[in-house]
Amino acid sequence: MASDISEASPSSADLKLQFAPFSSALEAGFWHQLTQKKLNDYRLDESPKCIKGYYYNGDPVGLPTRLNLEFSAFDVDGPTPARCSPAVGTLYNTNTLDSFKIIDKKALLEKEAREIWDSIQSGAAWKDPSTLCRFILLTFADLKKYHFYYWFCFPALCFPEGIKIVQPPSLLEQIFSAKQIAALQEAYDSLCMKRGTTALPYFLMKYTDDTVELASLGDGETFFTDTMMVVTVGVYDPCTLSQHPGWPLRNLLVLLVDTVEVLCFRDRTLQGSRSIQHSIMFQVKLAPDLCPKSVGWEKNKKGAMGPRMVNLSECMDPKRLAASSVDLNLKLMRWRLVPSLDLDKVVSTKCLLLGAGTLGCNVARTLMGWGVRHITFVDNAKISYSNPVRQPLYEFEDCLGGGKSKAMAAVDRLTKIFPGVNAEGYNMSIPMPGHPVNFSQATLSQAQKDVEQLEKLISEHDVVFLLMDTRESRWLPTVIAASKRKLVVNAALGFDTFVVMRHGLKKPPVSQTPGSSLFSNIPGHKLGCYFCNDVVAPGDSTRDRTLDQQCTVSRPGLAMIAGALAVEMMVSILQHSEGGYAVASSSEDRMNEPPTSLGLVPHQIRGFLSRFDNVLPASLAFDKCTACSPIVLDHYEREGFSFLSKVFNSSHSFLEDLTGLTLLHQETQAAEVNHSLRYTHTNR
Amino acid sequence: MASDISEASPSSADLKLQFAPFSSALEAGFWHQLTQKKLNDYRLDESPKCIKGYYYNGDPVGLPTRLNLEFSAFDVDGPTPARCSPAVGTLYNTNTLDSFKIIDKKALLEKEAREIWDSIQSGAAWKDPSTLCRFILLTFADLKKYHFYYWFCFPALCFPEGIKIVQPPSLLEQIFSAKQIAALQEAYDSLCMKRGTTALPYFLMKYTDDTVELASLGDGETFFTDTMMVVTVGVYDPCTLSQHPGWPLRNLLVLLVDTVEVLCFRDRTLQGSRSIQHSIMFQVKLAPDLCPKSVGWEKNKKGAMGPRMVNLSECMDPKRLAASSVDLNLKLMRWRLVPSLDLDKVVSTKCLLLGAGTLGCNVARTLMGWGVRHITFVDNAKISYSNPVRQPLYEFEDCLGGGKSKAMAAVDRLTKIFPGVNAEGYNMSIPMPGHPVNFSQATLSQAQKDVEQLEKLISEHDVVFLLMDTRESRWLPTVIAASKRKLVVNAALGFDTFVVMRHGLKKPPVSQTPGSSLFSNIPGHKLGCYFCNDVVAPGDSTRDRTLDQQCTVSRPGLAMIAGALAVEMMVSILQHSEGGYAVASSSEDRMNEPPTSLGLVPHQIRGFLSRFDNVLPASLAFDKCTACSPIVLDHYEREGFSFLSKVFNSSHSFLEDLTGLTLLHQETQAAEVNHSLRYTHTNR
Repeated sequence: MASDISEASPSSADLKLQFAPFSSALEAGFWHQLTQKKLNDYRLDESPKCIKGYYYNGDPVGLPTRLNLEFSAFDVDGPTPARCSPAVGTLYNTNTLDSFKIIDKKALLEKEAREIWDSIQSGAAWKDPSTLCRFILLTFADLKKYHFYYWFCFPALCFPEGIKIVQPPSLLEQIFSAKQIAALQEAYDSLCMKRGTTALPYFLMKYTDDTVELASLGDGETFFTDTMMVVTVGVYDPCTLSQHPGWPLRNLLVLLVDTVEVLCFRDRTLQGSRSIQHSIMFQVKLAPDLCPKSVGWEKNKKGAMGPRMVNLSECMDPKRLAASSVDLNLKLMRWRLVPSLDLDKVVSTKCLLLGAGTLGCNVARTLMGWGVRHITFVDNAKISYSNPVRQPLYEFEDCLGGGKSKAMAAVDRLTKIFPGVNAEGYNMSIPMPGHPVNFSQATLSQAQKDVEQLEKLISEHDVVFLLMDTRESRWLPTVIAASKRKLVVNAALGFDTFVVMRHGLKKPPVSQTPGSSLFSNIPGHKLGCYFCNDVVAPGDSTRDRTLDQQCTVSRPGLAMIAGALAVEMMVSILQHSEGGYAVASSSEDRMNEPPTSLGLVPHQIRGFLSRFDNVLPASLAFDKCTACSPIVLDHYEREGFSFLSKVFNSSHSFLEDLTGLTLLHQETQAAEVNHSLRYTHTNR
Repeated sequence: MASDISEASPSSADLKLQFAPFSSALEAGFWHQLTQKKLNDYRLDESPKCIKGYYYNGDPVGLPTRLNLEFSAFDVDGPTPARCSPAVGTLYNTNTLDSFKIIDKKALLEKEAREIWDSIQSGAAWKDPSTLCRFILLTFADLKKYHFYYWFCFPALCFPEGIKIVQPPSLLEQIFSAKQIAALQEAYDSLCMKRGTTALPYFLMKYTDDTVELASLGDGETFFTDTMMVVTVGVYDPCTLSQHPGWPLRNLLVLLVDTVEVLCFRDRTLQGSRSIQHSIMFQVKLAPDLCPKSVGWEKNKKGAMGPRMVNLSECMDPKRLAASSVDLNLKLMRWRLVPSLDLDKVVSTKCLLLGAGTLGCNVARTLMGWGVRHITFVDNAKISYSNPVRQPLYEFEDCLGGGKSKAMAAVDRLTKIFPGVNAEGYNMSIPMPGHPVNFSQATLSQAQKDVEQLEKLISEHDVVFLLMDTRESRWLPTVIAASKRKLVVNAALGFDTFVVMRHGLKKPPVSQTPGSSLFSNIPGHKLGCYFCNDVVAPGDSTRDRTLDQQCTVSRPGLAMIAGALAVEMMVSILQHSEGGYAVASSSEDRMNEPPTSLGLVPHQIRGFLSRFDNVLPASLAFDKCTACSPIVLDHYEREGFSFLSKVFNSSHSFLEDLTGLTLLHQETQAAEVNHSLRYTHTNR
């Protein structure tokens, strides 16, 4: 145990040398960096880690002897601040407060002391004296509360009999002439320069009345001649007490043998000019022991043996605290459960939510849970009184005065939930097939603006969520996203059924391969879109709807389930090396090895709440699809808005004629007639 | 079409009689009642409905001739306000604005006119003259916006030539003596009394200089003698113009033949005393037509033929508006989809949520969606920075200053979402097995208080949700709820798996039947609880947990799915006639006829997010269960807290010894030894 000493201790003939222990000085940056290391690297790994602190020998009188650890502590090979000596240590970061408490501190200290002793015995310490000034740092980081528990130890081998002072400490200026002082200073600087370091923790010195020469510790044999009576060692001394050396000397003395004169080198700046005059010197008689005890655990702030705790939650910016807490929760997933989870891919995904109603709110909430930061809403509706109980981004207040815009209110709520979110809202309409826009020049140019805005938004995002409440409003974004090769996740609700699906992600035009007719193992680029199963083009479905048709009447839990599954499906797809091109998983794949660390990547999830069941169908893209077929994409890409406006202004037949659905209908009817004729014939 | 007239029209010799049309006067109460009728009774039924309005003949000069409809309109057999005449009408409430617009108004009017004419031709109108003063009300109620579109029609048969006035209107006091007036008043009152009504719309009168006699319209043959030259009819006249009668007279005149003297009876209160002096009289020559045209659709406020609209959303209390909007959304489910859905059973269920974390927030949100009004939270945690992105009742602001209590903040949020909610929060701990409470008298009595509070809460609620994050915290509420025969819905999360289950609902002690060993078709009272599958008693699992174990690390969508399913499962169970005693549905039942209108009532839903799959296992109650077995319930019921505190303060073995699990373990071990001996033997 380190003895507390003060300047007041009187000098006496038989005085034993006492050392000023280190005080640990941990900056907030250290704890932040530890948090990051714990989250990203260490996770549940409790094995000892090498870290680096430093100490300074230029402090003014009165300051404690500090060992500093800052954010750079984890970069062991990184630079040390100018004129500071590095100190290498061992970090033991425990996973629980309990293991922090019950870990065998005596054993930790003895292990470290043994290594010091071994390096002394083997002589390795002469070559690398940094082993003489090591530390142990035991920590527990409670990252839920931002409380950090820690305990420092500066292992020192003991001289059972103590160390007898032969010549008590004197200031260097009382012993050395000005010339000698200048020579020492110059010699120190040039040795540092020679060794390529800003501070040497230990060095050897020989001097005459006129000269001072220094050498590295390991160069003793050539440096000293046997004519010299006293071997002088230099120690870079962080202590400011005039009668006592600091801790780094302790283990050095064990290394040395016999009587030693010591220079405690102190390099201070006084009134702007450098001063080492206050360095101290003395000689000691060493009594080395083959089996030294060791001390070194730091006392806590109450002066007792025990750990310290720092609560950083109070001094952190709450918004940063929120951000790192959310990060933590996500990273916990990787620690034990899914080490291969690529969180960055998820967190950095830019999501466009078309529709900010029941589905949109639930999708946004789940995206927030996954740490997605970039969320954009498009909706043209206002919040009505029945919304807040089912649309979890809105409250009663949002309904007053005719209701706030959903897209804007959703952004406000996301910011209230997590200030670090990057959310935007667009209060705009999405033009739809069968909803004419040619009433006037104004309606036409508004539609054109809306299309351009939607095209821009889809370009700027990675994933497009279709979360509207009509079929036809999904048409335009389906076409644009297919053309721009963006991943589309589509969710739609019935009363107690839902579909959550990804649209097929078209290959770039050059690499497009002809469709296959196989219904199993469909690769992502051959999967159908929402419209592929339909043989009727979308049109105006909102006209003349009864009250129960005006809003989606569904069991309240359904949107939460479908919204959550839409996001979980997106995350699983993002984890697949081929992303949206991944082969669709089906219900039959449930017993096979999953294609991603998170499991299956189905084409569709069709849910049946009454049976608490989901099935995972997959279907091919339809070459006559009114939304994603080559002919529709081709017309859209070549003609742009003039094509789109024809679709908006026309009835079903326009798209059906274009894609060949009309012909298909006629053929089907003809086949049915033929069939019924045959049927009649055979029944005669 | 009703001609607009004003007091200014001059009297002339060849003057045609003009009638003041009714102005419809619809009170907000009428629209509220229509809303209720639409939601609860009519739903999508567009068939005509009989409703009742009334008119008054005592209005001061200047007021329009009003036909009033208020909340009582739908109670056709209910009372009419004093001194008012009822008017029966036909309500056509359309499902869409389009059908409101395109409905054939001419046909509606002609149909009604034909009925009036038929009642006149058949003579039925003499017996029941109320058919002469009927109305049509065409409405469309936009219950999403609280906009009500309506159009009134007061059908009147036309005299193609008009009605020639023989003697222009004079005030009664100019024709009748004071004695006659008093006699008329007395005669009217006594006729009303005789007929048991507060106002007679039509009546017959004969008078001399001294007497006035009245009779009902149907009594004409005995009332009038052939010596009388002029037949006088009385009409209860809502008009206040001195030169014109109100609308009710029109169809009466068609009924009458030949020249008729008319008394427009007006019964006013002037300076506190009753006055009928301002009633008017005149004679007319009738020219009945066998095939009269009809008029009657009311003009709108702009004076044009067209419907009116009233926007009640602006004048309604927003909180009531919110309540009825939420109601509407729920009732829509019953209209077409699940007519047999018993919403009251759901809405009135009192839910106790033990745990207000990820699961608790999502369960509460889904309950709100189902219209559940009574929600109570129990939690002892504070909101931390990582919570809001996954716990959808909290926001960043709630985390500041150490964090609000979850139970309290959850209540605040529910009130902000829907002010009509009846939510309460209890910031309290739930004592747990293996978490000793006997450190001091204070901790012991706190634990006793907590137990008592929990017992009280469970007694006061219908369904108990177990939504905590440790196994052992579920023990005490499992025991109490089993003892009190409350339905328990339990949800627990893994990383990408969950279980949502109902606990078996014990039968009352007297009717308890011995357990069966069948594993299919397990009735509700024989189902297991959360602890039934465990052969180890719950103990302290929180000690020494690493960071990833301190909070539930799960895929963010998981809690939304499990929370939603927990509520949907509860709702399905509530729809079952046997409630918690319902036989458990299993995965195999998915293809069978479901036991409730909402589908299956499983024992457990075990979900696997990586496969997007749910299975529905069912398991029997275990007679050695550490929570719901008879011996545990018996000890709890007989010894109360003294038994519970033994469980809290003891290790696993206490409950295991009590239930016989210890013995079971030993027997199993012995069996394994025997088995391995046998195995060794047979392999020799």
